[in-house]
Amino acid sequence: MTTRGLFITFEGGEGVGKSTALEYLQRYLGAAGIPVQVTREPGGTPLGEEIRQVLLSVRDSPVDPLAELLLMFAARSQHLTEKICPSLEQGIWVLCDRFTDASYAYQAGGRQLPMQWVQQLEELVQGDLHPDCTLLLDAPVETGIERARGRGELDRFEREQQAFFQRVRDTYLRLARESSGRYRLVDASQPLESVTSQLEEIGRDLVRCWSEESGT
Amino acid sequence: MTTRGLFITFEGGEGVGKSTALEYLQRYLGAAGIPVQVTREPGGTPLGEEIRQVLLSVRDSPVDPLAELLLMFAARSQHLTEKICPSLEQGIWVLCDRFTDASYAYQAGGRQLPMQWVQQLEELVQGDLHPDCTLLLDAPVETGIERARGRGELDRFEREQQAFFQRVRDTYLRLARESSGRYRLVDASQPLESVTSQLEEIGRDLVRCWSEESGT
Ligand SMILES: Nc1ncnc2c1ncn2[C@@H]1O[C@H](COP(=O)(O)OP(=O)(O)O)[C@@H](O)[C@H]1O
Ligand SMILES: Nc1ncnc2c1ncn2[C@@H]1O[C@H](COP(=O)(O)OP(=O)(O)O)[C@@H](O)[C@H]1O
Ligand SMILES: [Mg+2]
Ligand SMILES: [Mg+2]
Repeated sequence: MTTRGLFITFEGGEGVGKSTALEYLQRYLGAAGIPVQVTREPGGTPLGEEIRQVLLSVRDSPVDPLAELLLMFAARSQHLTEKICPSLEQGIWVLCDRFTDASYAYQAGGRQLPMQWVQQLEELVQGDLHPDCTLLLDAPVETGIERARGRGELDRFEREQQAFFQRVRDTYLRLARESSGRYRLVDASQPLESVTSQLEEIGRDLVRCWSEESGT
Repeated sequence: MTTRGLFITFEGGEGVGKSTALEYLQRYLGAAGIPVQVTREPGGTPLGEEIRQVLLSVRDSPVDPLAELLLMFAARSQHLTEKICPSLEQGIWVLCDRFTDASYAYQAGGRQLPMQWVQQLEELVQGDLHPDCTLLLDAPVETGIERARGRGELDRFEREQQAFFQRVRDTYLRLARESSGRYRLVDASQPLESVTSQLEEIGRDLVRCWSEESGT
């Protein structure tokens, strides 16, 4: 019997360093001989990437926030069925750039939809499946925006106001406090070397826990 | 104060004559001096029509049925906010080619998802809003397929098997029995003149009820 892979998600505001952290952990785990699948949300499958386009493109009419939330979970349902669950079952670790915590932070926090709507959809789409570990890259809103600048045209989310991003950050920090067992908080305001050494420690812990559990 | 418009939906399997019936009723109501807005699902808004493309296009990998259901309701949420509710509030009648009953018939009936999942999303997206009247065009599955033939390339739903369409028809008929107050059953297996005279009767009833209620 294969031991199930670990499901690890990367969360945080725009430009804090999620993708950078994911790449670092991918290399770290690869070097430790662990099979890793890297993916992202919204997206991760052909259908999901089409939904991503629909979600991120800049529009004339406002997007209904509940429609936005349902699109996120539609892409997520496809992602779980087609890619995440099959990988985990084969013993592959899945590193995912954003997941359901982003729906809490952006659609409930940022857009101010009821948290309970997100919870209801989470239950419908995920059942018992939750990330084994979530890395929250946290930095002041301005730091992230500063780092993200110069990545080209801003998408529909990147065009939001400062107050929106502040609610996103506050919601992430609250989630991390409420589910402290699953979360690892990374101080992403630090220079890259400091962030890297925080990530190395997390990588080491993950590999150790997993080796102990799988008895290898 | 403007009297709210009536919300009228057209349901039934492929090729039974929904669009033909909708056009007839549109002309009938127009001639009676009633302001009418015609629309369709999935679709009806720019975002919704993009979601329609995602839903109908033929794909290599199977679409997760719950992802399909969530996409339908995402498009619906946008449709209600951007178009249906504002029209009804202005006193305009909305004639919609398919609505939530199609999610029951296709995703619960056809794809065999739990009815309760559709119910849950219906409540989330619609709250108290329901069609005032639903015309169910009913005919044997083969009749509809025969009529639909020659409309060009088949979309992802039109490629389903006979048994799928039979479950769709059975589910629609059950819904009509269970919500008999809202439904008007049209025998669409009849030649066009017979269908037209059934529709004329429905049009007359709708205009009469509405005139009485609005006191005009
Ligand atoms: N700790 C850090 N200090 C300075 N720059 C960083 C740091 N982490 C990431 N960056 C840089 O900031 C930019 C955004 O990082 P990225 O990983 O793409 O963020 P995200 O995926 O969260 O949007 C990149 O140019 C990246 O090299
Ligand atoms: N009662 C009827 N008898 C014969 N042909 C019909 C009847 N109703 C519709 N049709 C024809 O069948 C085809 C499909 O009708 P349509 O209204 O487009 O169906 P739907 O919108 O339900 O898919 C059209 O060519 C239409 O003219
Ligand atoms: Mg990134
Ligand atoms: Mg039609």
